[in-house]
Amino acid sequence: MKTPPAGDWQLHSQLASDTHPLAQLRLCELRLMDDTNYPWLILVPRVIGAQELVDLRGAERHLLSDEIDHAARALRTVFRPRKLNVAALGNIVPQLHVHVIARFEDDPAWPAPVWGRVAARPYTPEQLIDRINRLQDALRG
Amino acid sequence: MKTPPAGDWQLHSQLASDTHPLAQLRLCELRLMDDTNYPWLILVPRVIGAQELVDLRGAERHLLSDEIDHAARALRTVFRPRKLNVAALGNIVPQLHVHVIARFEDDPAWPAPVWGRVAARPYTPEQLIDRINRLQDALRG
Repeated sequence: MKTPPAGDWQLHSQLASDTHPLAQLRLCELRLMDDTNYPWLILVPRVIGAQELVDLRGAERHLLSDEIDHAARALRTVFRPRKLNVAALGNIVPQLHVHVIARFEDDPAWPAPVWGRVAARPYTPEQLIDRINRLQDALRG
Repeated sequence: MKTPPAGDWQLHSQLASDTHPLAQLRLCELRLMDDTNYPWLILVPRVIGAQELVDLRGAERHLLSDEIDHAARALRTVFRPRKLNVAALGNIVPQLHVHVIARFEDDPAWPAPVWGRVAARPYTPEQLIDRINRLQDALRG
């Protein structure tokens, strides 16, 4: 799979509507899920047509691993979670994307995985600005 | 985190009882989940004390990514699934482990994640031998 000009790649419309932009990493768009139930990041590699981790070349996979690590450390710095959950599922939205979620013993799904448990609770504008600022600070740190 | 002698590392008792040994990779024990509902592999890095992906050193993370890729390709070769699901959750069993699961539109959880949906259906000895042989062939291929 050739690396295409980034201009040709488009974020899937479902991911675009469920998330807010947080950072543009070397490989991935890093997005914040619009759900105050959990601090929840999504990484989307800008690789046209990728649906599975096995669709990435080795160097892209390693870079994705580095960017997951970077995102997870930022979540940990800001929220001090009990556990981090990392997953590439994609049964519904086909564009390859990776969930990185900070979990707490008092969150609404603990200890189950978050998917399909409770309805998303969107951020207010003030909450969103605060959360994005804190995460961007941690990502730069 | 220093890489300890492998002899000091022990598979968590819950993972040992839920899975069967499939292969010993450079970093991970590769195991088959004892559940005929889904072709379901588990990779467990032999790194003492590791609970999160961020507990691994960079080189270990990249090797884990390579071994996930290897396991996922074997699943794909043998089962031709509709989707692969890859996840490091660990909310219940603290030892770092990665799920690699072949998913089908007619499996008992589709399109939801597999966790907490239906009770595991263990393999019969004959099924188990057949499945392990086919996966080991694909892993060698």
